[in-house]
Amino acid sequence: MADLAARICVPCTVHTLPVPREQRAALLADLDPAWSLVEDRLLRRVIRHRDFAGPLAMAQRIGALAQESGHHPDLHVHWGRLIIEFTTHAIKNLSEADFVMAARVDRLLAES
Amino acid sequence: MADLAARICVPCTVHTLPVPREQRAALLADLDPAWSLVEDRLLRRVIRHRDFAGPLAMAQRIGALAQESGHHPDLHVHWGRLIIEFTTHAIKNLSEADFVMAARVDRLLAES
Repeated sequence: MADLAARICVPCTVHTLPVPREQRAALLADLDPAWSLVEDRLLRRVIRHRDFAGPLAMAQRIGALAQESGHHPDLHVHWGRLIIEFTTHAIKNLSEADFVMAARVDRLLAES
Repeated sequence: MADLAARICVPCTVHTLPVPREQRAALLADLDPAWSLVEDRLLRRVIRHRDFAGPLAMAQRIGALAQESGHHPDLHVHWGRLIIEFTTHAIKNLSEADFVMAARVDRLLAES
C-alpha cells in the first residue's frame, strides 16, 4: 500500500491509458478491503460514522489531499456515511492515478 | 425567502407530516429558482464552479449550517459542481424543514 501511495500522479488527459483489466485485481489487493470496483470503471469506498460531522470533516481532509495531488474524487456526504469514488473522467475509465489516490486515502485514514 | 428561512426547524421523526403536494409549489416559489423538486420527494440545487476547491468549501459551509440547524442535506462534491439535496429520510418525503433549510442555504449563498 505504501508503494502505491508513493507513486507520482501524472495529470490525466484523454490520452491517459486505462489500467488493463488483468492488472486491476492486483492493484485492488494493495488497497484496504473496503474499496470495491464498480462496473469496472470506478473505485468506491464507504466510510460509516454515527453522525454528520464525521463524514463532513473526512470529506474536507480527503478533498485537501486531492487538491495537493491534483486528482479529485467524487465525495458524497450523508448523515452516517461518506462515499468516496475515484474514476478518470477524461477517459471514462480507471487509470493508475485512481488506485494511487485510493492508497493515499487509505494512508490518511490509517493516520486518523 | 427571509420568512421561510427564519422558521424554526422542528426535529423530524416518523410522525413528521409531509408538506401537502398542493403547498409545495408555493414554498418552492419562495426559494431561489435553481431549486427543483425531484420525484416529488427531494429538493435539489446544483451550484457550478470552475474548480474542486469551490464545491468543497461550499459543502463545508452548508454542512456547518446544517449542523447548527439539526437538519442535514446530502452533499455531492464533484470537480466543477456541488449538488445539494434535502429530503426527510424519516418519512421518505418532503417536510417543511427541507424547504426551511433550502431557504437558509439561499441566504448563505446570497451572503457569499
